[in-house]
Amino acid sequence: MANYPKPESVTRVASLGGGPIGGGWAAHFLARGYEVSAYLHDPAEEPTFRGILETAWISLTELGLAEGASLDRLTVTSDLAKSVDGAQFIQESGPEILPVKRELYRNLGEIVPTDVVIGSSTSGLTMTEIQLDCATPERCVIGHPFNPPYLLPLVEIVGGKKTAADAVAWAGSFYQVAGKAPLIMKKEIPGFVATRLQEALWREALHMVDNDEATPEQIDIALKNGPAPRMVVQGQCMAFHVACGAGGMATNLDQFGPTLKLPWTRLAAPDLTQSLRDKMVDGCNEMADPAGFEKMAEERDRMIVAVLKAVQGGGG
Amino acid sequence: MANYPKPESVTRVASLGGGPIGGGWAAHFLARGYEVSAYLHDPAEEPTFRGILETAWISLTELGLAEGASLDRLTVTSDLAKSVDGAQFIQESGPEILPVKRELYRNLGEIVPTDVVIGSSTSGLTMTEIQLDCATPERCVIGHPFNPPYLLPLVEIVGGKKTAADAVAWAGSFYQVAGKAPLIMKKEIPGFVATRLQEALWREALHMVDNDEATPEQIDIALKNGPAPRMVVQGQCMAFHVACGAGGMATNLDQFGPTLKLPWTRLAAPDLTQSLRDKMVDGCNEMADPAGFEKMAEERDRMIVAVLKAVQGGGG
Repeated sequence: MANYPKPESVTRVASLGGGPIGGGWAAHFLARGYEVSAYLHDPAEEPTFRGILETAWISLTELGLAEGASLDRLTVTSDLAKSVDGAQFIQESGPEILPVKRELYRNLGEIVPTDVVIGSSTSGLTMTEIQLDCATPERCVIGHPFNPPYLLPLVEIVGGKKTAADAVAWAGSFYQVAGKAPLIMKKEIPGFVATRLQEALWREALHMVDNDEATPEQIDIALKNGPAPRMVVQGQCMAFHVACGAGGMATNLDQFGPTLKLPWTRLAAPDLTQSLRDKMVDGCNEMADPAGFEKMAEERDRMIVAVLKAVQGGGG
Repeated sequence: MANYPKPESVTRVASLGGGPIGGGWAAHFLARGYEVSAYLHDPAEEPTFRGILETAWISLTELGLAEGASLDRLTVTSDLAKSVDGAQFIQESGPEILPVKRELYRNLGEIVPTDVVIGSSTSGLTMTEIQLDCATPERCVIGHPFNPPYLLPLVEIVGGKKTAADAVAWAGSFYQVAGKAPLIMKKEIPGFVATRLQEALWREALHMVDNDEATPEQIDIALKNGPAPRMVVQGQCMAFHVACGAGGMATNLDQFGPTLKLPWTRLAAPDLTQSLRDKMVDGCNEMADPAGFEKMAEERDRMIVAVLKAVQGGGG
């Protein structure tokens, strides 16, 4: 068990990378009151990097800054050792090129104390691949945000083969304390959870455009006016659970299960085994408000109304 | 060319069906100030039906009622001919059973004047199938809402083989006037647009649960905190277009195109042909704000902030 700092005691983080993700993370941590040391590969990136932070700061201010939060708590350097010096957590958002990542983690593995967790923003690589040449891989985890990272709360967390379980758990606690919505994954799979779901939808969208079944504009109209306002409020599992009334997900699967095999989308459906049915039904029942489905439907509607009003009001 | 009424002149609609969809439609039309005649198959459904309307009315009032809108403008009957008498538009939300639908449209085809368009809420059937035994099929269209239909704006519109093009166009105009977001589809395909996209995502979610890669709760956490708050504001096409900066969708496809074939999701990707690339890029460019991507990114952020505040505020 590594001697990680208490997540609540972290005051200084390093954000590596000068692109929109690295910049977004730096802005997020600054807004939550942390001291942030940013590493840029090339000092010439600094004006663009500061531009990203200034843009993000407008939204972060509107959402509410933590006490003492300030852009003045940012330091910028192109000296990797200097950037990580004193940092109690490191968010790495370097280029999505495996040899570059491996070399970076080989370096970080030597210069960063072993009680500091390193989280990678990678969306396309796995930690097992990234940590291959790192001498201290046990504290290296994926901490994958969603773009824009200073606004969307999700962080998907998973370790590689050489990552210690306590590092994954620590990262989950830390991101929570730092104002994010952590999702600790059970398995290391390509694309993690949210991107896989989004990618399935995206591929279907491409098929539809390819077959002249819809234009890109129609895809977007459909999403914005159909599933999306509800999906902010209820994920797809709870949306179906509540839509089916008192019978919930069990009714959904028993009634609509056969239609899973219909040619809706090009994605082949899994067999609706008893095991899958139980996992879905039990999972939804665990999530459900014990007050019952009418209460949940009312709550859904109340929240959708708030979301629609926010969107219709133009965010003003 | 049928002698349809001007969409703006419609004052009376019939809503057929006493379930959540029929009830939701009735509530929507009442909220927009229409007189509504509701048909229930069985008079015993009326208490439940009125309960659906009363629940919906709370949200509709909060969103803002049209002048003169009132639940008192509702009449309920179990006499089909009486329900459609005098209606200038008919929204049909009967059971999703093909023989039942066919019989219903055979009846409606005889008793409803030919200058009245009939829109079906069906999600699982096509109009070509439904209108088979209807003597006046040219004015029968799909008008598929998203649940809950009194809140989500989307209506997907498409005709069957025997539907006249002017009926489809009329339905698009009418739904627009009636406060909906109409999407007139180019082709009749199973699942229409939004449900196909949602279904692709849903099947991937089922695969993940089946393989113990995520729990239903994790699926929902990922969606609510990741793609959804952005998807309300930007559909997936514009989200990628704007995320790629000045290069837009072209950069997205040229840079990430190869990763389409990666094993992210179980849905096979289409070949990224020049034709598909052009359709995506041109479609996004047409949708894009000519003020440029920085303006669009700012606008996206401003709206996401409003959505997040609405959700965090608990809709209060």
